[in-house]
Amino acid sequence: MTETKTDKFTLINELARRRGFFWQAYEIYGGAGGFVTYGPLGAKLKQNIERKLRELFVNKLGILEIESSVITPGKVFEASGHVGHFKEPMVECAKCGKRFRADHLLEEYAKISAAEAEKMSLTEIKQAIEKNAITCPDCGGTFNEPQQFLTMFETTIGPYSGATGYGRPEAAQGIFVEFNRLYTIARERLPFGVLQIGHALRNEISPRQGLIRLREFTIADLEFFFDPETPNCHLLKDVENETLPILTAEKRLKGSDEILNITVKEALKQKLISSEWQAFFMAMAKKLLIEIGVPAEKQRFIEKLPWEKAHYSTQSFDQEVLVDRWGWIEVSGHAYRTDYDLKCHMEASGVDLRVYKEYETPIEEEQFVVKPIMAKLGPVFKAEAAKVAQLLASVPAEEVAAALEKHGYYQIQNYKILREHVNVSRQKTVVRGKRFIPHVVEPSFGCDRLFYVALEYAYHTKDDRVILSFPRDLAPTQIGVYPLVSKDDIVEKAEEVHRLLVNEGFSAEFDDTGSIGRRYARADEAGIPLGVTIDYDTLNDDTVTVRDRDSWQQVRVSIKDLPELLHKYFSGKINFEELGTLVQAK
Amino acid sequence: MTETKTDKFTLINELARRRGFFWQAYEIYGGAGGFVTYGPLGAKLKQNIERKLRELFVNKLGILEIESSVITPGKVFEASGHVGHFKEPMVECAKCGKRFRADHLLEEYAKISAAEAEKMSLTEIKQAIEKNAITCPDCGGTFNEPQQFLTMFETTIGPYSGATGYGRPEAAQGIFVEFNRLYTIARERLPFGVLQIGHALRNEISPRQGLIRLREFTIADLEFFFDPETPNCHLLKDVENETLPILTAEKRLKGSDEILNITVKEALKQKLISSEWQAFFMAMAKKLLIEIGVPAEKQRFIEKLPWEKAHYSTQSFDQEVLVDRWGWIEVSGHAYRTDYDLKCHMEASGVDLRVYKEYETPIEEEQFVVKPIMAKLGPVFKAEAAKVAQLLASVPAEEVAAALEKHGYYQIQNYKILREHVNVSRQKTVVRGKRFIPHVVEPSFGCDRLFYVALEYAYHTKDDRVILSFPRDLAPTQIGVYPLVSKDDIVEKAEEVHRLLVNEGFSAEFDDTGSIGRRYARADEAGIPLGVTIDYDTLNDDTVTVRDRDSWQQVRVSIKDLPELLHKYFSGKINFEELGTLVQAK
Repeated sequence: MTETKTDKFTLINELARRRGFFWQAYEIYGGAGGFVTYGPLGAKLKQNIERKLRELFVNKLGILEIESSVITPGKVFEASGHVGHFKEPMVECAKCGKRFRADHLLEEYAKISAAEAEKMSLTEIKQAIEKNAITCPDCGGTFNEPQQFLTMFETTIGPYSGATGYGRPEAAQGIFVEFNRLYTIARERLPFGVLQIGHALRNEISPRQGLIRLREFTIADLEFFFDPETPNCHLLKDVENETLPILTAEKRLKGSDEILNITVKEALKQKLISSEWQAFFMAMAKKLLIEIGVPAEKQRFIEKLPWEKAHYSTQSFDQEVLVDRWGWIEVSGHAYRTDYDLKCHMEASGVDLRVYKEYETPIEEEQFVVKPIMAKLGPVFKAEAAKVAQLLASVPAEEVAAALEKHGYYQIQNYKILREHVNVSRQKTVVRGKRFIPHVVEPSFGCDRLFYVALEYAYHTKDDRVILSFPRDLAPTQIGVYPLVSKDDIVEKAEEVHRLLVNEGFSAEFDDTGSIGRRYARADEAGIPLGVTIDYDTLNDDTVTVRDRDSWQQVRVSIKDLPELLHKYFSGKINFEELGTLVQAK
Repeated sequence: MTETKTDKFTLINELARRRGFFWQAYEIYGGAGGFVTYGPLGAKLKQNIERKLRELFVNKLGILEIESSVITPGKVFEASGHVGHFKEPMVECAKCGKRFRADHLLEEYAKISAAEAEKMSLTEIKQAIEKNAITCPDCGGTFNEPQQFLTMFETTIGPYSGATGYGRPEAAQGIFVEFNRLYTIARERLPFGVLQIGHALRNEISPRQGLIRLREFTIADLEFFFDPETPNCHLLKDVENETLPILTAEKRLKGSDEILNITVKEALKQKLISSEWQAFFMAMAKKLLIEIGVPAEKQRFIEKLPWEKAHYSTQSFDQEVLVDRWGWIEVSGHAYRTDYDLKCHMEASGVDLRVYKEYETPIEEEQFVVKPIMAKLGPVFKAEAAKVAQLLASVPAEEVAAALEKHGYYQIQNYKILREHVNVSRQKTVVRGKRFIPHVVEPSFGCDRLFYVALEYAYHTKDDRVILSFPRDLAPTQIGVYPLVSKDDIVEKAEEVHRLLVNEGFSAEFDDTGSIGRRYARADEAGIPLGVTIDYDTLNDDTVTVRDRDSWQQVRVSIKDLPELLHKYFSGKINFEELGTLVQAK
C-alpha cells in the first residue's frame, strides 16, 4: 500500500482529470477538500451505475423508489440518534490551530489499527497521543484535549434562528419517516423495500483519498421491511447456491483475515448471517459488483466488530473490493437495523408506525386496558391533554400498567402520567391480530465508490495504450462515429449515420479530428465499446466497419441493419462477432 | 384564480398524496414547509422528465453534462454576486415575532403587483406598509423595520468556523467555475454547452404553493458558451419557422399583456430577442413542453422588466405555462448572462478564464506591454509578489496603462500597483489572435415545475374516473400485467409474461388484486399507458389483450410478438392500433 507514482490510483486520477471523468471541485479557488465535479464522461458513467441499481432492484424486484430532500429538519436526526452519535474524535493543535481526525493520527503515527482506534474513548485517545508523543504533523505543536466533532453539515431552515436543519448523512431516514405512506402505497403488505439514491453529506474533518472519502457523495440506501415473525426470504432459492466470501467477526477477533467461501444456504444454516433477507441482498450486491466489472475473487464481506457497527445495527457486513492503492475498501454496507429506526421515530413523533397483522385464528386473552381520564388529564396538561391521550394510545397498555405498578408513574416524552390520570383494567377480549414494528435490513451502496472501482477494474493497457474496458451497458459513450478521411462526401455520410444512431437513442459521438488511429486510441481511452467507420466503400455499398474496443477486431455491417444489431448488442443479446463479417483491420 | 375545493391544484395534490406521486415531507414531525418527498410514481415521472432533458440536449445536441456538489465554498457565491444580491425583503411582527416576505404581503394586502413590489426599496416597502396599514396576518401586530434576508442556506465546511459554505441556489456556478476544464474537454472549440441537473436550495422565507415554490428543488441549468463576435446559431434553420408566443417588456411597461405570436426568424429580425442562441433555446423549450403534454397555446414567453431580471442578465424571458389555480407560472428562464459570471470568477480567483482566438490574418499593431519589475514588487508585496505579477498578466495591458496614466495606480483585487512597480512600453507586434471571455445564454428549467405541469396537463376525467394521460415516454409505469381471474394457471402465465417484459427492460407492474375493472381504473389513475391481460384464451393460443389507457380500446397480440411491438410503441414508431387486431372490450 505504499504510494508510488504509477499506482492505479494516480494513473486513474490523472486520466480522470484529463478526459473529464472527475476532478477536485472549485480548483480555481484552490480546490475544496472532499468535493469533486464529475465531468461529461463521469456524469454518464455514474448515471449508468445508478441505472443498474434501479434495474436490479426497482425494475426486477419491484422495490419502490423515492426521492426526498438533502436538507432535513433537526428533529429527524435527533430522533434517529445521529445528533448524538454521528461524531468523530478530533484534536486541535494548540500552536497552529489545525484540526485532525484523532483516530487517523493514531493509525498513522502510533500504528494503532483502524478497528482499535475506532473503539477508543476520548480519554484513551488522549493517553495514546501522549504515550506515543504525537505532535502536529504540520507544525510540531502539541494538541489540546480531544473532542467529539459532529460530522453533519448544520444549517438553519427558514428565517428563524431556532429551526436547525442538517444535510442528511444517509438517505435512509427519508424513507423511515415516510413509512406509513409507503406502507399504504405497498398496499399494506410485508415484505416490501424502498430505495433512495441521492446526494448525502458528511462533514469530514480532513477528507482524503479522492473519491473514496467525500464530504458530498451519492448514496443508494435500500430499506427492506419485513415481519420478524416470518423472516423468510421467498427469493432465497434464486441465490442460495451463490458463494459469499466472508470474513467473520469471530475470525477477526482472533486476528485472522481468512476468508470463508461459503454458499448463502450454508452461511444461513451456520447462522453466520442472521437474516435471510440480509443474505439475499449480499448475494445481489456481489452480482452487481461483478456486473460492474469487479470479479468475485476481488470482493469480500467483512463482518463488523461490535464497536465498529453503527448505533442502529445488530449485525453488519461491509462489502469490500480490493483496489491497487488502498487495499480493501468498502463499497456497500449491509446492516440489520431491526426495528430501531421506526421505533425511534414513533417515540419522538408520537405517530404510530406499527403495522397490523391479523392472526390466522383469533385468540382470547386477558389484556390490560388503559383509559385516560380526561377530567384528570385536562387540568394537568391543559391544551396538550388530547395529545397526551393520543400518545398513551400508541404505546402498549401492558407497558403503561407495569410502569404505574412499579414506579407509580409512566413517562412518555415530557409527560409524566400518574396512577390517578388513568383507569387501568384487565379485560378478556378476543384478539384478532396485533400491531408490530417491522424489521429492516439495509443494503447501502456508495455510488462514488462503485464508480471508482468500475473505473479501476476497467483500466487496462495494451501496446502502451490505455483502454477502459467498461462492461458495454456501463460505458459513458456507446458508439464513436468516424469518417475515415475528411473528404466532404464521406464526412456527410458519417454525419448521417451519426444522426441515425442518435435518433435511435444511442449515446454516440462524432469525431473527425486527427488520424483514424488517433481517434481509435482516444475512443479506447474513453471506454467507447464500438467504433463505426465510414469509408470509400460506404459510398458504394452502404456498409460500414464496426470496431471492437477490446479486441480491436472489425466487422462489416450494412447501415440499414445497424440500429437493430446495435440494440441487440447493447442489451446483451448478441456478441461482437455476431454483428457482421470479420474483416482485416485497416 | 380564486381557490375552490375542486380546482385542479387541490385534486392533483390529493391524488398525488394518495397514489404516491409526492407529498409534503416529514409529515410525522408536523411537515417541513418547502420540502416534498416524491413517492414511487413521482420519482419515476421525475426521472423520465430529466431523461427527456438529457435526450433533447445531451444526446441530440451534444451538450456536455456535469454533476457537481450542492454545498459550495462561500468564495464562489461571493464572486458570483449571490451573497450580495440573493436576498428577499422581510418584515417581522413586533408582537408575535412571525416573519413574512414583505413583497408578498404588499401583493396580498395592498394589491401592489408582483412586478411593482419586486422593484421597491426597503424604505418604499416600509412606507407602503404604513400607508396601507398592513399588520401581521397572524396576530394583528405591527411590523419592525423591513430588512433583507439572504435566501441561501448557510453552513460551515469542515471543522473550522471560518469556512462558510452555501447550498447552491442554482447549478450554473458549478459549471462556470470549471470553465477551463470544460473548454479543454470541448477540445477548445466554441460554441459549446454544458448542462447540470441537480438539487438546489433556496431558503424561502415563507414557502407556499406546493411544488411551485420549494426550498429544495431540482434545477436543470444549461450554460451555452459562444464567441460574441460570431454569435450566429448554426442550428437556427431547424427552428426558424417555429412560432414563439412572446409578451415583450415594451408591452408590459405599457400595461398590456398581449401575446405576440411570432416566428423565431421574425423575432430575431425585429430584435425582440437579442441572441440567436437564446431564440434557439426558447424554441427548444417550447418543443420540450409540448412533448411533456402542454400545448403551445398554454405557453408564453414573458420578457422580464429591468428590475425583475437577475443581477447577471441583460435580457431575460420566462417561459410560462397556464395552470388552473395559479394562472401563469414560470417553468424555465432564458437569460443572456453575457460574460458576467466568467468575468466575476476570473477577477475573484485570479485565474484566466479567457479563450484564445486566432485571427484569420495576423495584424500588426502597436500594443501596450506591461512588465512587472520584480525588484520593486518584491519588497512591497513580499511572498505575494509572484501572485501579483501573475494577476497583472491576466488583465489587458492597455487597461493597466490607462489606469496608471489617469490615477497614478492600478487596483487589482487588494493590490495597488504604482507606476514605479512596472515598465510600461508600446511595442509594434504582429498579433496573431486575442484572448476573450465567451458569452453565455442560459436556459434554466425548474424540474419540479415541469413535473407539476406534466401532472396537471395529464389530468383528465372520463365517466367520473381520473385518467392521467401522460405522453407514453413519460409514464412512470409503462405496462400493467393482469391475470383476468385468480385461477392458478392464469396467474402463473401472467407472472411469466410479467417476467418477460421486465427482462426486456420495461417498467411493468403485476396486479392481481380486485376485479379487472377496478385494476384498470387503478392503472388509468396511475397513468399506465398499456394493460396486458391474460385470460382463458391465452392458455390455448398464447395471445393476450392489450388495453389502451386513453381510448379503452383493446387489441389481441401474440405473446411472442409482444416485446418487439411494445419496444416500437414506446419509442413512438407505431401507434396503439398497430399493436394488433382490435377486439371488443371485455
